[in-house]
Amino acid sequence: MVKLSPTIQQLVDVLAQLPGIGRKTAMRLAFYILRDQSGYALKLADILSRTAASVVHCERCGNFADESPCQFCQQTNRDRGTICVVASAQDMLAIEQTGEYRGDYHVLHGLISPLQGIGPDDLQIASLVRRVAAGEVRELILATSPSVEGEATALYVKRLFAHSGLVVTRIASGVPMGSELEFADKATLGRSLLQRRDY
Amino acid sequence: MVKLSPTIQQLVDVLAQLPGIGRKTAMRLAFYILRDQSGYALKLADILSRTAASVVHCERCGNFADESPCQFCQQTNRDRGTICVVASAQDMLAIEQTGEYRGDYHVLHGLISPLQGIGPDDLQIASLVRRVAAGEVRELILATSPSVEGEATALYVKRLFAHSGLVVTRIASGVPMGSELEFADKATLGRSLLQRRDY
Repeated sequence: MVKLSPTIQQLVDVLAQLPGIGRKTAMRLAFYILRDQSGYALKLADILSRTAASVVHCERCGNFADESPCQFCQQTNRDRGTICVVASAQDMLAIEQTGEYRGDYHVLHGLISPLQGIGPDDLQIASLVRRVAAGEVRELILATSPSVEGEATALYVKRLFAHSGLVVTRIASGVPMGSELEFADKATLGRSLLQRRDY
Repeated sequence: MVKLSPTIQQLVDVLAQLPGIGRKTAMRLAFYILRDQSGYALKLADILSRTAASVVHCERCGNFADESPCQFCQQTNRDRGTICVVASAQDMLAIEQTGEYRGDYHVLHGLISPLQGIGPDDLQIASLVRRVAAGEVRELILATSPSVEGEATALYVKRLFAHSGLVVTRIASGVPMGSELEFADKATLGRSLLQRRDY
């Protein structure tokens, strides 16, 4: 194996820790950074340092933000009576981008996964209980993925608020919009039949 | 369009400048960095700063290295009479990894490409001329890619040393090892016939 110089080797090693970035891609990125003449390395180093220093969790909804409460919790025109419960800040952005929702969010930062040793206590569930206890909330929308972990987490949260008088709903699962029925998998098509709605 | 907080948006923007990293992937990397609890952001920032501060071009061969001359130029067991001319430090590593070559290298840091406005003066050719003029060198191996730009660059360097008494050679092009003849493209198969060798 050919040895890179120590600094370049370290750069490749650290880049290769990023998800979806293998050693070949890490090498390609490292050489791009080395070849760059415009100060890219320092620009990226600077924004990484500032991210580490200034990005916090919103104390209200758990979203990543420059300040707490975050920009969503600061908006005065949102429906504070509805909380959409999501696994991650990325899922929260995906829902916000639909333009179909104007309520509050709550980011769990993970899903219950016994295989990975992640239990309810590892998620931001206590803060959700506190938000609900504070009054105001009428409906919880459980918007975790329809995966094993997502379903387990939704079920856990549903049971937690079973006797709270809260309306607890779950996002619909079914055949994706614009797709062909014949290509839908059995589980999805079956779910779309079971959960058919009045029309 | 949903707004990310300013710092996170900048992180995504800077990551999206990397080659082969689109906005979706940049977002995924940014959220990985945000979620990480082990100080990854600062670790990457640190190695980037050190790369910018300490990685230099080897004054002899042009390779990226922590010191000049680089680790290859410092090795005393290499054949100083042969210089393998390559487009990039990555190509140099690829050749070194074959284990078939124990001579010197010279990195041009690019290829002649009129379409991209890159001429011979933009490449590290003057330093190659100086190395050859210093004596010692018997053979130049032109190991640029067999692409339009690679061929143009090889031809330019060959002409430059036409009357120097130097042996100038070009890496072989032909059917890749282990491949099926029927799937080889016409140009490659044609080249393998034209450049057939005694057997």
